[in-house]
Amino acid sequence: MWLASVDGAIGPVEEARIPVADDGVLRGDGAFEVLRVYGGRPFALDDHFARLGRTCAGLRLHAELDALRVEALALLDRAGEPESLLRLVVTRGGRRIAIGEPLPARPATARVATVTYAPTRVLNGLKTLSYAGNMLAGRLAKEQGADEALFVTPHGRVLEGPTWTFFWVRAGRLHTPPLSDGILESITRARLLEELDVTEAPCTLDDVRTAEEAFIASSVREVMPIAAVDAIALPHAPGAVTAAAHEAFKRRVERELATPAAA
Amino acid sequence: MWLASVDGAIGPVEEARIPVADDGVLRGDGAFEVLRVYGGRPFALDDHFARLGRTCAGLRLHAELDALRVEALALLDRAGEPESLLRLVVTRGGRRIAIGEPLPARPATARVATVTYAPTRVLNGLKTLSYAGNMLAGRLAKEQGADEALFVTPHGRVLEGPTWTFFWVRAGRLHTPPLSDGILESITRARLLEELDVTEAPCTLDDVRTAEEAFIASSVREVMPIAAVDAIALPHAPGAVTAAAHEAFKRRVERELATPAAA
Repeated sequence: MWLASVDGAIGPVEEARIPVADDGVLRGDGAFEVLRVYGGRPFALDDHFARLGRTCAGLRLHAELDALRVEALALLDRAGEPESLLRLVVTRGGRRIAIGEPLPARPATARVATVTYAPTRVLNGLKTLSYAGNMLAGRLAKEQGADEALFVTPHGRVLEGPTWTFFWVRAGRLHTPPLSDGILESITRARLLEELDVTEAPCTLDDVRTAEEAFIASSVREVMPIAAVDAIALPHAPGAVTAAAHEAFKRRVERELATPAAA
Repeated sequence: MWLASVDGAIGPVEEARIPVADDGVLRGDGAFEVLRVYGGRPFALDDHFARLGRTCAGLRLHAELDALRVEALALLDRAGEPESLLRLVVTRGGRRIAIGEPLPARPATARVATVTYAPTRVLNGLKTLSYAGNMLAGRLAKEQGADEALFVTPHGRVLEGPTWTFFWVRAGRLHTPPLSDGILESITRARLLEELDVTEAPCTLDDVRTAEEAFIASSVREVMPIAAVDAIALPHAPGAVTAAAHEAFKRRVERELATPAAA
């Protein structure tokens, strides 16, 4: 049974409710995080709470994050699901929500379709509840026969996916778009930049179509090879660089979870 | 007492709840409308339901709009608040919500501050629950001492407010930005275009700063004069063109409410 905590009250997720009059509901006005639980332990919890705090500050939203942290850890203790996800939500109406969720199905590779998307500017860098565009992009990609959307600006700049960071390989070198392109400051991206030799560079559609390899990176997906972009197959999925990135990330996870400071 | 209907169950708005697991809550994935109730009768109900249907179609969201319409009219019958607002919401999780709300305070004029904003493209023309950027823009404007935000693209194109359409007057002629700029297809805007001689034209910051008059138009605000933009006062608030537009809109409302087809 999957559990949710609303303001500290833990119960089955399907029975958890919040007031419709909360602007978290009526306006998508709130912040969220989703993080991976390995062997019952949340990964990069400090970093996720730090980003949640930055989103709240950006939104001018006062949230009781210390209380949410205590409630989220209590939820994990009760849930007993060693391999799972933990969703954290705070709303404009002041609700604190933590939800335990199952891992999504994990196909070996993902096909992506480009969807035109422009960062709003006003919400750049903020992980808010206003994700209708992200969800719609995924649906538009599926209508094109792909698994996932890849955001491309009207000017042809390749950005990220709705819930992940994009990496590509050219001439054997690993690249990822810079944060200054208005993408989310991904926690998995930061780990990969520390572990590997990665070039931060703007990405064009030509870069993607002539890439040797490409992959998705996120807390939920870790490193997932991209097999095709707009139905054009990439040469290798996974290629050697992608496989090495995934191994490096898994080692990093093990290392962090082995140190007491990580929990 | 203000009432809400959730899937047809009517009760006090502060007691109405929906499941947190609904993607309307977790992802801002849903559609909404807010319309004006005059003398107990909803104005432009058909147009608001038509736009709600277009948003649902755009989001690939199946919603029982006929049922929501019956429930919303039942709510109005029970509410007995002749001068009020009616909010309509449908969520990805399939909830139908109607809420009666009080009219907001109505200052005689509004001061606006420009906030940089780029339409997302993927959500253009859709009135979704993902309004965190709209709400944040309003907060940023208030931090600058203004009442309302005015969205301006990174390239200096003036678009609209978070919940209203922008009109300005130059050389005695009324102008408003074209829908092709990615703004919302406002129901009040459409009425004003039918009633008045309005030029649809792209708007720059220079246009705004040298305007003779400007106003906000929306279902909730009707026509509200803009007194200043970025602390630069406009020459007239309200000017003659704005006052005429407000009178024309009020006559249009009376005419529509007097015809049985409007209800």
